[in-house]
Amino acid sequence: MNGKRMGVATLRMARPPRVRAWAAVGGKKERDGPLGAQFDAVFPDPLCGEQTWEQAEVHLQKTAVALAANKCRLPVSALDLMLAGDLLGQCVASSYAARGTRVPYLGLYGACATMAESLAVGACLIDGGFAQRVCAAASSHFCTAERQYRFPLAYGGQRTPTAQRTATAAGACILTAAADDRAPVRLTHVCFGRVCDLGVTDANNMGAAMAPAAYDTLRTLLSDTGTRPEDYDGIFTGDLGATGTRLLCELFARDNIDLRAVHADCGGLLFDSGQDVHAGGSGCGCAASVLCAHLLPQLADGRLRRIILAATGALMSPTSVQQGESIPAVCHAVVLESGEKR
Amino acid sequence: MNGKRMGVATLRMARPPRVRAWAAVGGKKERDGPLGAQFDAVFPDPLCGEQTWEQAEVHLQKTAVALAANKCRLPVSALDLMLAGDLLGQCVASSYAARGTRVPYLGLYGACATMAESLAVGACLIDGGFAQRVCAAASSHFCTAERQYRFPLAYGGQRTPTAQRTATAAGACILTAAADDRAPVRLTHVCFGRVCDLGVTDANNMGAAMAPAAYDTLRTLLSDTGTRPEDYDGIFTGDLGATGTRLLCELFARDNIDLRAVHADCGGLLFDSGQDVHAGGSGCGCAASVLCAHLLPQLADGRLRRIILAATGALMSPTSVQQGESIPAVCHAVVLESGEKR
Repeated sequence: MNGKRMGVATLRMARPPRVRAWAAVGGKKERDGPLGAQFDAVFPDPLCGEQTWEQAEVHLQKTAVALAANKCRLPVSALDLMLAGDLLGQCVASSYAARGTRVPYLGLYGACATMAESLAVGACLIDGGFAQRVCAAASSHFCTAERQYRFPLAYGGQRTPTAQRTATAAGACILTAAADDRAPVRLTHVCFGRVCDLGVTDANNMGAAMAPAAYDTLRTLLSDTGTRPEDYDGIFTGDLGATGTRLLCELFARDNIDLRAVHADCGGLLFDSGQDVHAGGSGCGCAASVLCAHLLPQLADGRLRRIILAATGALMSPTSVQQGESIPAVCHAVVLESGEKR
Repeated sequence: MNGKRMGVATLRMARPPRVRAWAAVGGKKERDGPLGAQFDAVFPDPLCGEQTWEQAEVHLQKTAVALAANKCRLPVSALDLMLAGDLLGQCVASSYAARGTRVPYLGLYGACATMAESLAVGACLIDGGFAQRVCAAASSHFCTAERQYRFPLAYGGQRTPTAQRTATAAGACILTAAADDRAPVRLTHVCFGRVCDLGVTDANNMGAAMAPAAYDTLRTLLSDTGTRPEDYDGIFTGDLGATGTRLLCELFARDNIDLRAVHADCGGLLFDSGQDVHAGGSGCGCAASVLCAHLLPQLADGRLRRIILAATGALMSPTSVQQGESIPAVCHAVVLESGEKR
């Protein structure tokens, strides 16, 4: 094992891969939110000039990948591997975004945990010596998700207070090998999550379904690494929303750990309460874009020194919900540090 | 890179991970096919005793995983990682199968290429020192796929001659580290595929959509490793069916390479022509179960010494097809050898 496995499930990178560049793109509501000015590109038109919302989501993901690669002065074709996923059936936003790149492509599915999954797998492949430049990406689109999971948009269905709003957004990171001293952020640890299901069947309360998975992965990571929440400048979940955040903090409180001082949720950061988003943002693009618009820049300039990104995914499908199944969830986590060794 | 990258995209395992154990499960039609007697378990009831076809597919995948782990005398909970995927929206067969295992889980989406994707990622994670025991699995079910991609089963839609039949099947492999001398098969090389799309829009002719991807990956793998088709005892695609197989051989013939002597397609092996399956089998479970029922046993006892499994996936969704999009495809390949060093 080369000593890379710590404790139950945490993986320590022997030579921590770097995050060399990143880009976040969003839609109108994301632009109007508190992080709006931090996006690299914003598309006020939900179709992004395309014919369908699905094509628009492809456009978002392709744009994020191209902008991130461009910041490294690399053509996308110079990447060794693309790792990407999204919420759509058969992950079509990612597959169609990878079409034409001529870059080897691995499709991943972790629902809203996908950005952390792609970063984590990419980091392992780089640290293992299998790639030098990997793109990790994820996207979501309010309109594609709404009609797939819930109602036709034109129906105008009421949303419950616990419902979250799928972000129209994408994020992409270019991971490079440890030796790349131009890359300002290091990815030091990975924790792949286990599927948790406490029996929640309400697809409008995904925060409740995902909170136990976030708790499980964060407890594992903290225990395996012998760290405490206060050892991090921030622990960012994505996307528990307001309901899931409250539940996560309650779960930690039972262990006499107060998570609140250090915790924030990407779904809570992306929008503000005046934007009629109920419990907050969600979707693969939420954690992806908050990471790339808001967190990585702060790691790059040292305002944040060490954080955990613990992205959570609700793994149900429209079919499984209609069949009355409960909602399994997973949380994958990565530890990110400012580039200079601490 | 530790010398692991060869040529354009092929990855050489420094210490080739082993395939320690495997299991294949299938349905009635798979039992009645030429490989029927080689399955570890067969469920003549399409519901496998469950309430829905989706639950039945979960049952197939869980059974394959449990049987494979049992052959190693390991509880599933002793695995370091599960890597799995399927055809269903949001990969629910795999997520629900992983629920309750308490094993870290990575969902993958490569359509019918998923078994090779899970083996390839798993092998890299083991060779990179991140895991010691990984389960790679994939499943499909005729009834869940039919109603998702095509028509309600009760509608009794006619199938075109180029259509393939989704296998009701699952396969699971337990990968272990190179030092495991009880494991009879070695995984020596991996080639992650690029997304290819030559503009095929007919979802009833997936073989035509996938053949260019199989050609691209196989050409890359052969070129990167400096090998020729005759250096392998078999090159097994999955699942091009009859139409895609003909196209693949034509593409190689243009390079003056006759693939026919060494090539077979998992979709052609699983069923015989009297079974009314048109162009052959398909689905994530097809390559997965043919590998586990038919190929790995021959590698274990030396009837096969070295093969390529080049699994192909058509990456469209019902929505993308309805929107008139063409069908992107990907092919991921792994090289498998008899355990003894050649």
